[in-house]
Amino acid sequence: MRSYAGPHVSTPPVPEWSAAEIERLLAPVVRELMPPTALSTLPYDLNAGVPDRETLPWRELAAAATRVLEADPGGALTYGGAQGYEPLRAWIAARQAQETGLALDAAHITLTSGSAHAIDNIAATFVAPGDVVVVGAPTYPGALRTFRARGARLVAVPQDDDGLQMAPLAAALERQRASGAPAKLIYVIANYDNPSGSTLPLRRREELARIAARHRALVVEDDAYTGIDLEGPPPPSLFGVAGGQGMLRIGTFSKTIATGLRVGWVVASPAMIERLVYMRFDNGSSPLLHRMVLAYLQSGAHERHVAMLRDLYRERRDAAAAALVEQCEPYLTFRKPAGGFFHWLRLRDGLDAVAVARAAAQRGVAVTPGRNYFAAGGGEGNLRLVYSALPVARLQEAIALLGAALAEVASDGGERAVDGGTGGA
Amino acid sequence: MRSYAGPHVSTPPVPEWSAAEIERLLAPVVRELMPPTALSTLPYDLNAGVPDRETLPWRELAAAATRVLEADPGGALTYGGAQGYEPLRAWIAARQAQETGLALDAAHITLTSGSAHAIDNIAATFVAPGDVVVVGAPTYPGALRTFRARGARLVAVPQDDDGLQMAPLAAALERQRASGAPAKLIYVIANYDNPSGSTLPLRRREELARIAARHRALVVEDDAYTGIDLEGPPPPSLFGVAGGQGMLRIGTFSKTIATGLRVGWVVASPAMIERLVYMRFDNGSSPLLHRMVLAYLQSGAHERHVAMLRDLYRERRDAAAAALVEQCEPYLTFRKPAGGFFHWLRLRDGLDAVAVARAAAQRGVAVTPGRNYFAAGGGEGNLRLVYSALPVARLQEAIALLGAALAEVASDGGERAVDGGTGGA
Repeated sequence: MRSYAGPHVSTPPVPEWSAAEIERLLAPVVRELMPPTALSTLPYDLNAGVPDRETLPWRELAAAATRVLEADPGGALTYGGAQGYEPLRAWIAARQAQETGLALDAAHITLTSGSAHAIDNIAATFVAPGDVVVVGAPTYPGALRTFRARGARLVAVPQDDDGLQMAPLAAALERQRASGAPAKLIYVIANYDNPSGSTLPLRRREELARIAARHRALVVEDDAYTGIDLEGPPPPSLFGVAGGQGMLRIGTFSKTIATGLRVGWVVASPAMIERLVYMRFDNGSSPLLHRMVLAYLQSGAHERHVAMLRDLYRERRDAAAAALVEQCEPYLTFRKPAGGFFHWLRLRDGLDAVAVARAAAQRGVAVTPGRNYFAAGGGEGNLRLVYSALPVARLQEAIALLGAALAEVASDGGERAVDGGTGGA
Repeated sequence: MRSYAGPHVSTPPVPEWSAAEIERLLAPVVRELMPPTALSTLPYDLNAGVPDRETLPWRELAAAATRVLEADPGGALTYGGAQGYEPLRAWIAARQAQETGLALDAAHITLTSGSAHAIDNIAATFVAPGDVVVVGAPTYPGALRTFRARGARLVAVPQDDDGLQMAPLAAALERQRASGAPAKLIYVIANYDNPSGSTLPLRRREELARIAARHRALVVEDDAYTGIDLEGPPPPSLFGVAGGQGMLRIGTFSKTIATGLRVGWVVASPAMIERLVYMRFDNGSSPLLHRMVLAYLQSGAHERHVAMLRDLYRERRDAAAAALVEQCEPYLTFRKPAGGFFHWLRLRDGLDAVAVARAAAQRGVAVTPGRNYFAAGGGEGNLRLVYSALPVARLQEAIALLGAALAEVASDGGERAVDGGTGGA
C-alpha cells in the first residue's frame, strides 16, 4: 500500500505495508463492530440529534472563555486532573442533590468528554469480555458500539410507548442468572429516550430499581436529554428513586448548551467515581472548557437559554407532528414525546424503513432508519426524525419531501420481506 | 456502604450496595493496573511535566476563541466528527510533510484529546488481550497503564544514554517470534524521552525501522516533546526514516502551547487513520478547541512563542544542571538532554530513589522516583526532575533542598537493599 509519495529519507527504504497486513494486526473486535452513525451532508438534516445552530449561546461562551483565561490562565490551561474541575463538579452535584433529595457533593461526580465518553469510561471500568449488559430495544447505538467494543454480550429488552418493559426485563435477568451469566449493567435512557422518545413512568422506575437491586445489577441511567422538558419536569430520576444505590447517572451539557463543548459527567457513589477516574487514560478533559462552562452557568444566562430552548423545541415538535399527520398520515404513526429531540416513527406494516430513508435522501432529506438502534434485530419499520435542529418552515418542507418518499416506496414495491418486518417497538 | 444521606424518594427503599460488592463487579483489569501518576501539591513541583504557567499564551488563545465563535458559532459548537477539524488536520499534515519530505494531507491525521488519548486510541484499535507491546526501560508510565488496560503483555527493552538499544530490541523481537507471540507494537519516544531525556541518534532510527519492518511490528512514535528543541532540530523522525511505512506518529500541542487544551493527533496511513477513527467512542473531541488552536497557530504568535520557550527552557535546563552539580554532585550523575522537560538522575550506587523522594517531599520538593517508568522492574536508583515548570531561582532553591535530602538519606541508612539496586538506565 503506497500511501505516501515524495522522497523517502530512509536508506535502505522500509518495505511497504499492505492494507491486508494492517487489517490482520487490528484487535479482532474492530472487525466485529458495526460502523458508527455517520453525519449527513444532505440539505435537510433530520438525522443529527443536535441543538438548533442559530440559537447557540456563543456570545456568552466567548465572554466566559475570556473571563476564565484572564482570571487564572495557569489553572485554565494546565492539566486539571482526571476527575475534572472541582467547582463545576460541585455545581452539578448541587443540582442533582436538589432533584433527588440526596446529599451529593463534588466527590460524587466525575467529568467526561461528553456523555458518549462517560459510557466508554463506565464500560472500561465495569465491562470485561463476556459480561452481560442489558439494553433497550431500541436504544442509543453509540452505547451498543461502546459496550461491544469492551466485549460485552448485549441482551435486548423490548420497549413500548412507555419505555423499557418490566416483565421482559425481569425475565431476561432471571434467564441470565439461571444461565450462570448474571447481568452486570442495565443501560437505560429513562427520559426522552434516544431514539424512541419514550419516558419511563414513575411506577416503572420503582419497579426497575427493585428488579436491578434483586439481581445486584448496576443501573446506568443515561440522562443526556434531561432539561429538554417540553411538558414540565419528568418523573424523579432512577438515581433518586434508588437512593443512589447501585446507580451510575450520566449527564451532559451537549443538549442544553452545545454538543461542541464535549462536557459530560457521571454521578455515582464516591467509591465508583474513584474507579472511573482510575480508568481514564487521557490525562483528563480540558480544564479550559470546564471553567468556561461554569462561568457561563454562573452568569445566569443558562436558565434563560434553557427556557427559550424549551419553547423553541416545543414549537418544532408540534409543527413536525402536525406536518407528519398532514403529509405522511397514511404511512406512519407516532406518539409525541414529552421532551428531547426525536419523533420515533412507526411505518405502516410492510413499509421498509431503509427504502424510505433512501428515497428521502434522494430528495435531500436525511432521516435515520430504525435498524441501527436494535442490538438483536428489529427496527425495519421505524425511522427516527430529529425536530430540534431545523426551523419550522424547513421542517415542514423536509416532512413534505418525506411524505413524497413514503408515497413512492409504498407505490413501487419498496415493501420489505415479511421476515424482515418483525421489528419496531 | 452508605454514601448518601437525606430523604430517599424510593418506596420501598433499594438495599445498600457495599464497597466489596462493587469491587467484585469491576472489570478484572482495574484491579491489576498500577495507579496513575498523581499531581503534587508541594511548594516545589519538579514532578509534573508541564510548560511554565507564567508564559502561557492566554491572551492570544482568548482572542482566538472569540474569533472562531464569532466567525462560525454553529461550526465551533456542534459535533465536528470523530476525526476532528479538517483545516487543523491539514495544518499539522503540512508541517509533518515539510519535516519528512513525504506527501501527507489531512487524511493522514486524526485529532485526539491530547497525546495520552492518542495512545489509548491506538491501543483500542490494535491491542487485544495477550498482544505483545515492546516498550523502553524506562518509558512513559501513562503508556504502560494504557497498553496494560487493553490486556497487552509488555516487553521492556533497556535504554542507554542514546535511548532504546538496538541489539536487545532485535533479540527481544526474535525471542517473541520464536515463542509464537510476535510483537505487534513498538512504543518509543525518540526525541527527548520521558523520563530519560535521551534522543535516539539517526543510525539507531534507521536500524529500528529495519528491525521493525523485518518483524512486521508497527512502530508507535510518541513525539510529545518535539518542538522543545534546545540544541537545534532533532534527527529526522522515525516516521520519516521509515517513509511512513508501518508507523503511527503521535503529536500534541500540550508542550508547545498548553496541557489544558487536550489537543493531540496521530499521523499514519489513511487506512490506519480510518481504523483509529472507527475506534472512537466519544463523538470526537471539541471542535471549539480545534478551531481555537488553528486560529492561534495562524496568527503567527505560535512561532514566536515556541522560540521564546526554547530560550526559557534552555536557561532552566542549564541552571538546573549547574545547581545539580553544585548541590548534589557526590550523590548523582546525569546527562543534559537536547530538548524536552526532564533531567534524568542516576543516584550513587545504593541510594534509594524512593527514600530520596520521600526526604525531598518532607522539604517541600516533589520529584518522581524512577520505578514508575519501568514495565518489568528497575529505576530504584533514578529520579526524574522537571526543569520546565519553575523559574530559575525556584529551581535553585528546590535543588538545594534536594541536595539536603540526598545528604540525609546517604548519611542515615536510606540505602536500598542490594537486590533492589539493579535498576536504572
